Amino acid sequence: MEDVRLYSKKHKENDTIVKVRNVVIGANKRIIIAGPCAIESRKQTLGAARFVSRAGADIFRGGAFKPRTSPYDFQGLGEKGLEYLAEVRELTDMPICTEVMEPGAVGAVGENVDILQIGSRNMYNYSLLKAVGRTDKPVVLKRGVSATLEEWLLAAEYILSEGNQKVILCERGIRTFARHNRFTLDLSAIPVLKKVTHLPVIVDPSHATGKRDFVSAMSMAALASGADGLMIETHPCPEEALCDGKQSLSPSEFFELMEKLKHEDVFLQAISEKRKNSNKKLESEHNTIIPNL
Amino acid sequence: MEDVRLYSKKHKENDTIVKVRNVVIGANKRIIIAGPCAIESRKQTLGAARFVSRAGADIFRGGAFKPRTSPYDFQGLGEKGLEYLAEVRELTDMPICTEVMEPGAVGAVGENVDILQIGSRNMYNYSLLKAVGRTDKPVVLKRGVSATLEEWLLAAEYILSEGNQKVILCERGIRTFARHNRFTLDLSAIPVLKKVTHLPVIVDPSHATGKRDFVSAMSMAALASGADGLMIETHPCPEEALCDGKQSLSPSEFFELMEKLKHEDVFLQAISEKRKNSNKKLESEHNTIIPNL
Amino acid sequence: MEDVRLYSKKHKENDTIVKVRNVVIGANKRIIIAGPCAIESRKQTLGAARFVSRAGADIFRGGAFKPRTSPYDFQGLGEKGLEYLAEVRELTDMPICTEVMEPGAVGAVGENVDILQIGSRNMYNYSLLKAVGRTDKPVVLKRGVSATLEEWLLAAEYILSEGNQKVILCERGIRTFARHNRFTLDLSAIPVLKKVTHLPVIVDPSHATGKRDFVSAMSMAALASGADGLMIETHPCPEEALCDGKQSLSPSEFFELMEKLKHEDVFLQAISEKRKNSNKKLESEHNTIIPNL
Amino acid sequence: MEDVRLYSKKHKENDTIVKVRNVVIGANKRIIIAGPCAIESRKQTLGAARFVSRAGADIFRGGAFKPRTSPYDFQGLGEKGLEYLAEVRELTDMPICTEVMEPGAVGAVGENVDILQIGSRNMYNYSLLKAVGRTDKPVVLKRGVSATLEEWLLAAEYILSEGNQKVILCERGIRTFARHNRFTLDLSAIPVLKKVTHLPVIVDPSHATGKRDFVSAMSMAALASGADGLMIETHPCPEEALCDGKQSLSPSEFFELMEKLKHEDVFLQAISEKRKNSNKKLESEHNTIIPNL
Repeated sequence: MEDVRLYSKKHKENDTIVKVRNVVIGANKRIIIAGPCAIESRKQTLGAARFVSRAGADIFRGGAFKPRTSPYDFQGLGEKGLEYLAEVRELTDMPICTEVMEPGAVGAVGENVDILQIGSRNMYNYSLLKAVGRTDKPVVLKRGVSATLEEWLLAAEYILSEGNQKVILCERGIRTFARHNRFTLDLSAIPVLKKVTHLPVIVDPSHATGKRDFVSAMSMAALASGADGLMIETHPCPEEALCDGKQSLSPSEFFELMEKLKHEDVFLQAISEKRKNSNKKLESEHNTIIPNL
Repeated sequence: MEDVRLYSKKHKENDTIVKVRNVVIGANKRIIIAGPCAIESRKQTLGAARFVSRAGADIFRGGAFKPRTSPYDFQGLGEKGLEYLAEVRELTDMPICTEVMEPGAVGAVGENVDILQIGSRNMYNYSLLKAVGRTDKPVVLKRGVSATLEEWLLAAEYILSEGNQKVILCERGIRTFARHNRFTLDLSAIPVLKKVTHLPVIVDPSHATGKRDFVSAMSMAALASGADGLMIETHPCPEEALCDGKQSLSPSEFFELMEKLKHEDVFLQAISEKRKNSNKKLESEHNTIIPNL
Repeated sequence: MEDVRLYSKKHKENDTIVKVRNVVIGANKRIIIAGPCAIESRKQTLGAARFVSRAGADIFRGGAFKPRTSPYDFQGLGEKGLEYLAEVRELTDMPICTEVMEPGAVGAVGENVDILQIGSRNMYNYSLLKAVGRTDKPVVLKRGVSATLEEWLLAAEYILSEGNQKVILCERGIRTFARHNRFTLDLSAIPVLKKVTHLPVIVDPSHATGKRDFVSAMSMAALASGADGLMIETHPCPEEALCDGKQSLSPSEFFELMEKLKHEDVFLQAISEKRKNSNKKLESEHNTIIPNL
Repeated sequence: MEDVRLYSKKHKENDTIVKVRNVVIGANKRIIIAGPCAIESRKQTLGAARFVSRAGADIFRGGAFKPRTSPYDFQGLGEKGLEYLAEVRELTDMPICTEVMEPGAVGAVGENVDILQIGSRNMYNYSLLKAVGRTDKPVVLKRGVSATLEEWLLAAEYILSEGNQKVILCERGIRTFARHNRFTLDLSAIPVLKKVTHLPVIVDPSHATGKRDFVSAMSMAALASGADGLMIETHPCPEEALCDGKQSLSPSEFFELMEKLKHEDVFLQAISEKRKNSNKKLESEHNTIIPNL
């Protein structure tokens, strides 16, 4: 790898810290991004936001535009989904992260959310990478399921070289022969990335395992390997989810995981204590429409 | 796999035959698509077209827009490249195939060429698939390097379900642990696809092997496995190629391969005989500017 | 790879030709090794030998000792199986190939058969490789399912360096993410091996595909890629096979494949014509006990 | 998976605890197995034993018989190596773990050491598995580099079904397309195994990463994922190691890792405190021949 590359520690020695509203990513506090795979309805979205916020997560995620393997699967609520996400932001003060799928949509999505996500399927979509590189929004760049670290870092370079320095790498499992999980979570990538790049690195154990039973163990392992945070799927009612329900934690499972993480990780604890106090607005306004947990 | 899927033989029993100008893909004649990886200059393009046509290939390929791993690599000549491709079409009567990389460019690219190619990196780019699905241009859909057959066929479904029935699948190697070639050419996919889908299937041995020494053997094997044709990279001067020179055949290597293929494959012979007569226009007009082979 | 290695063309320029009884492997005639996965009974074995021989195959295969994933699966008939194989040899004059699984058994197995097979699971079993290297029997060395070409060639080197120069490499599919076949047949290994080593290389499309429907296409492709022969599983009654029935050809399917191969491959034709005449002894003696096909 | 299988929690609900001398594997104390890849000399062996013991590891490992990719690589000291291992046992009271490579050697190796290791290359060597299954020695069974969990568990079943219930599974990385590490450590296997089997599971981060820089992070992650212990390669002088020096920790790196592990893991702390007191004999007797660390 050449010295000139913007992602490299040879180019910039100090770790990149991405600030988004009141959350700091890449500093020594670990962060938790959580929420449902897809935005399905206003009720589901606000319900998810409520317990995600209450449990102490830092950032809310949810897909308004969904890349699905089949054209006949639920493709997301689109702009309506963006509206619900904007409402969550207003009510909870949590930064919002959502996926953008094509260059032409970057503007509209960016207006409504705080963090743009490039999904695993689009890691090689260079036109899209350039488009988000021309915004000033933080970008979560998921690893392609068969991307080498160099390909992934060079995908980040497409964003960085357009001017946007706020790139957060997200390991989410690679495709191997192994069949006990949906993908093989490649935690060994974390210390390698930490040596090579100044960019923050988070881990998505939900897509990697594909099964909620294993999300907790892999979350612990991800933080132990040195990740700066986690992206976790959780849904008010996983068995009714329109997308990836099997890997989504229920509200009580999510609370349990958050307790476990806070118990083990002192830095996580600090930030989440603060968070717990900030969602009173949501609590009061929506007690009527959202079934209590 | 469900009955309703448009790619399935359960939906449409008869093999799809794609006609483009005077070339027929998916009938019992095998076709050869050939040309350089990237359009680099007018001279290189017309020089390549000349020997590709003379050698008896059916369709000319060349990339005007190039998806490259690094943002600092040559990204293609863009619209200038499309002009040169249009010139090749006019001079040789060969249909032209080129890659399109983003939904917004589909219109402009489609005006200049006969066949749109979706590259391996964009197989999961559903916005792009839908955009080419709304044209009436034949589409070569390359397999993603870690795509299952079902994911690949459902990517085709994105195109088919938008109304465009002219989809040609192209196997180009998958990513495995093996390191003796750039990718592992998965020829076992061919008979499986032939059982499942009515769509034509071609093979790209150049990207799969990544080394010109092995292109000939894998071309023979691809046809023996049942493929409807080949896509082969060849360059007037491989050692000067701006992209993928190592896997590009020189003009004499390409002629040799074409002779071998015609010797072994009776159906290939028939179509390529015809082709040999059709490039007189190019020959006469460009004898002055193109160095003879 | 170093010059000193015995497998290398740098060490020995001329292709190694392995002679076993009246069959020659690695010359310009392609050979067919065929028979059931496991030796199950005298009747099954002689029945298989009869149609395999009649169809024009060159060498008979069958497992007396079977490496099985589960200890509760059928493990082979053991020494009784060797007896039946010896009987086939006597009746048909076909050379016999069978697997040996441990160093202590090499002597006994070698006495009864003409070719020792090292299965894919034992490619890294260096004690076993050394043991067969100290015999003068030809050895079919199957590739490990995740072996690089260098590891495979160095496994051959273990045999060669003990003194036995009669090694035949057998590609049988590698383990990848792909799920449409049992393994991914890596035909691109064939031209690479042909460039690097003087040893003969054959292909086993039965284990690679795991499904009889695709054995024919991959047999054709294997020969087209440059393989010196094929190893094919066939069973008098695949649906009753104790092992790998799904990938075994029925007698009529095997005849059909042999006809197709002979039609396409002139060298195969020559040797198999000769073979057709040599199994009269089996025919006459066993007409009574073996149901006619 | 069937109920009848001996490895299954359906067969035996309580976790298997393997006792070997004064060490307990599979209880809630995590254990550390450490030592050099290969036994190279008496001085190297005793030197390694000294700092491994002093640093608080529980079990000493070292290969007397080495399965090597090339027949020309160092193959181990053989029986001389077993003698040195026996000497370590006498001097330190640490249980000794070493690899056995063929059925015929199981007896002799078993006499000299406490734990038999089946290497990754021999996971499918069923004759060897049966042979160690007929002993009463604990067996560390490494996962084959491309073994599914079911294949691995059924390899354990070969040992269990012969009567030996003391099987310890060891994850050591799988072969994937990824090239940033030697293998891809599959930590997601740990929680899956913990759900399915009662057998203890340990992790070898040294072979998995192949680079000492990443051993520490993956050790932490392995314990966080739920592993019962670690197997770590360390050498008195890694740059002079005859085998796998790049992945071996130096004495000071090993001490640093042990301190870190004890700081993070309360159960590890308990057992290693105890251990620290037990190697006085080695210290006093060998101060003369072993250079102080």
